[in-house]
Amino acid sequence: MAGVVLKLLNTLLQNGLLTLPAGLLMAALWWYWNNGSASKAQKELRLAAQQFRKLSAAMTKNVIEYGGVGDSEEPTHHDLVPPAVPADIDHILLQHNRRTLEDSFTRSVNFYELMNQRRSVRFFSKEPVSEKVIENLIRTAGTAPSGAHTEPWQFVAVRDPDYKQKIREIVESEEEINYMKRMGSQWTNDLRALRTTHIKEYLTDAPWLVLVFKQVYTPLPDGRKRNNYYHEISTALSGGILLAAIQNAGLVTLTSTPMNCGPALKSLLGRPAHEKLLLLLPVGLPSATCTVPNIHRKKLNEILTVF
Amino acid sequence: MAGVVLKLLNTLLQNGLLTLPAGLLMAALWWYWNNGSASKAQKELRLAAQQFRKLSAAMTKNVIEYGGVGDSEEPTHHDLVPPAVPADIDHILLQHNRRTLEDSFTRSVNFYELMNQRRSVRFFSKEPVSEKVIENLIRTAGTAPSGAHTEPWQFVAVRDPDYKQKIREIVESEEEINYMKRMGSQWTNDLRALRTTHIKEYLTDAPWLVLVFKQVYTPLPDGRKRNNYYHEISTALSGGILLAAIQNAGLVTLTSTPMNCGPALKSLLGRPAHEKLLLLLPVGLPSATCTVPNIHRKKLNEILTVF
Ligand SMILES: Cc1cc2nc3c(=O)[nH]c(=O)nc-3n(C[C@H](O)[C@H](O)[C@H](O)COP(=O)(O)O)c2cc1C
Ligand SMILES: Cc1cc2nc3c(=O)[nH]c(=O)nc-3n(C[C@H](O)[C@H](O)[C@H](O)COP(=O)(O)O)c2cc1C
Ligand SMILES: N[C@@H](Cc1ccc(O)c(I)c1)C(=O)O
Ligand SMILES: N[C@@H](Cc1ccc(O)c(I)c1)C(=O)O
Repeated sequence: MAGVVLKLLNTLLQNGLLTLPAGLLMAALWWYWNNGSASKAQKELRLAAQQFRKLSAAMTKNVIEYGGVGDSEEPTHHDLVPPAVPADIDHILLQHNRRTLEDSFTRSVNFYELMNQRRSVRFFSKEPVSEKVIENLIRTAGTAPSGAHTEPWQFVAVRDPDYKQKIREIVESEEEINYMKRMGSQWTNDLRALRTTHIKEYLTDAPWLVLVFKQVYTPLPDGRKRNNYYHEISTALSGGILLAAIQNAGLVTLTSTPMNCGPALKSLLGRPAHEKLLLLLPVGLPSATCTVPNIHRKKLNEILTVF
Repeated sequence: MAGVVLKLLNTLLQNGLLTLPAGLLMAALWWYWNNGSASKAQKELRLAAQQFRKLSAAMTKNVIEYGGVGDSEEPTHHDLVPPAVPADIDHILLQHNRRTLEDSFTRSVNFYELMNQRRSVRFFSKEPVSEKVIENLIRTAGTAPSGAHTEPWQFVAVRDPDYKQKIREIVESEEEINYMKRMGSQWTNDLRALRTTHIKEYLTDAPWLVLVFKQVYTPLPDGRKRNNYYHEISTALSGGILLAAIQNAGLVTLTSTPMNCGPALKSLLGRPAHEKLLLLLPVGLPSATCTVPNIHRKKLNEILTVF
């Protein structure tokens, strides 16, 4: 019993789950006063509390903010897991094609204009998009940088109508609860302009659904885990490059974060424990009558300060 | 018994009722105080509880990263802060230029090839890059999607040599401690292939340093705060589009996360409390002798599953 609690705690700490350790601490307390053999429980509690303090301290220091501390205990050398990149890899000259100043400037303007046409699309045409194009988009996302080159991302592209239907059912049922209860009146009020509801036709209309998972750690063949530093930032950067690639190909998407759907979608798609859903992107072409809210974007001087 | 408690806890936590567990923890502690006997465990628990209360307070105040955390109390209507987008904004037809299937495919290949040449560069030429180009890159980053269109980002572009020098001093002194103490042997081992140290010449060599801040909330004129849903993901997506723009313009950068430098850099650059440093990107051209680790990237079938 006590050993199980500690083991669970360890796993949670490694996964960077913040609130659950507190819950476990409480569970331990609960157990203690119901079943307590005092000295054993005391020791258990003290260890749990110590570990929890370490976690809290690390959080307070802002270490976890950047995607995951490893163990706070220093492993001895033989405990080191192998890095994502072998330590003795050679270094080579960077391949770089210079552009003229004019070319660089013109390209920066053109790319801005292309990206500035991007809008989140919630009304899709059923027209198909070829798998080869989707593959190129994901390949492009896979060129993103990542903390310590851990490449902590997994993409699942769904074209199968049955799977899309199941995904829609999962998302709509959770989103219904989100709108009714979980988001609260401030959040739903903040979304009013977007005219979104829990009904998600795009999940069955769009020819592809691309689910972006972050890998919190990488399981090694021997059962140990390699920590994926900054997995959330890395995967979101990859997502940004994916959005650019989709726009560049003349396709449209919606950046969506279906709250509370992660577990059901993971189990539907057979994703392992170390992956967490970050984004769900329908990808395809807009319907002929597709509308978007007439929002404006912040001006350059609202988002840039120069020294 | 323990299973039931755990299940209950899970439900509470999943519904973001952070304050409740904190309260229960306090109640449990109170009980333990009066009935328990081990002074060491008591002290440990009290410290853990204190730290947890601080953490809970900070999270409840600031973080709704996954929308899973927030006030459990429903605000009354007059407490609502105005949304980023007025609720009555009109909806307009999406402007969309169709591309042919061939064009779409070709563009997806070309963009992949362009992005696949991106590498993290740690050796910069001192050649200048025009401010106009930097402005276009930031404009492009500002086209990113964001949760509830909150646009929760701020970019600071530093060309001034004195500021660059000060930034370098801050980063090098913190990174020295990072390498010596904070990262630990697993992390430093995981980085060995990159041959990085705390010495950061690129911070004074690169013509520009672009600092990317996420805005955790938006302060309103009346002192209230608008919550920026998914601020970290939104800002990192924007960062991904920025990386694509830099690469597209023929420039190079390094995606860096100088741990523990946020506060000092914020104060140097006069950034407000609601902003947190996410990334520091030197931007410019590579030095003539620039080398990079000869890493390879995961194959498509390692990062993509198709249904
Ligand atoms: C979130 C994130 C944080 C990173 N932090 C650092 C850093 O602090 N210092 C550094 O030199 N490189 C940093 N990198 C760069 C990675 O080491 C680099 O992307 C990785 O080794 C792959 O190399 P590539 O970008 O050339 O493909 C970071 C990358 C990401 C995505
Ligand atoms: C992290 C993130 C999460 C989002 N979540 C949702 C979502 O769950 N549902 C949705 O309809 N839109 C979602 N959006 C899209 C935003 O509402 C949209 O980007 C914003 O309103 C600006 O519109 P634009 O993308 O057309 O510029 C999300 C965007 C981001 C960046
Ligand atoms: N920030 C340190 C260490 C470092 C380096 C590379 C990297 O991918 C990661 I994650 C961290 C530095 O800049 O040296
Ligand atoms: N996920 C819900 C609500 C929603 C909608 C838009 C948005 O920017 C955010 I943040 C949330 C939905 O998809 O309707």
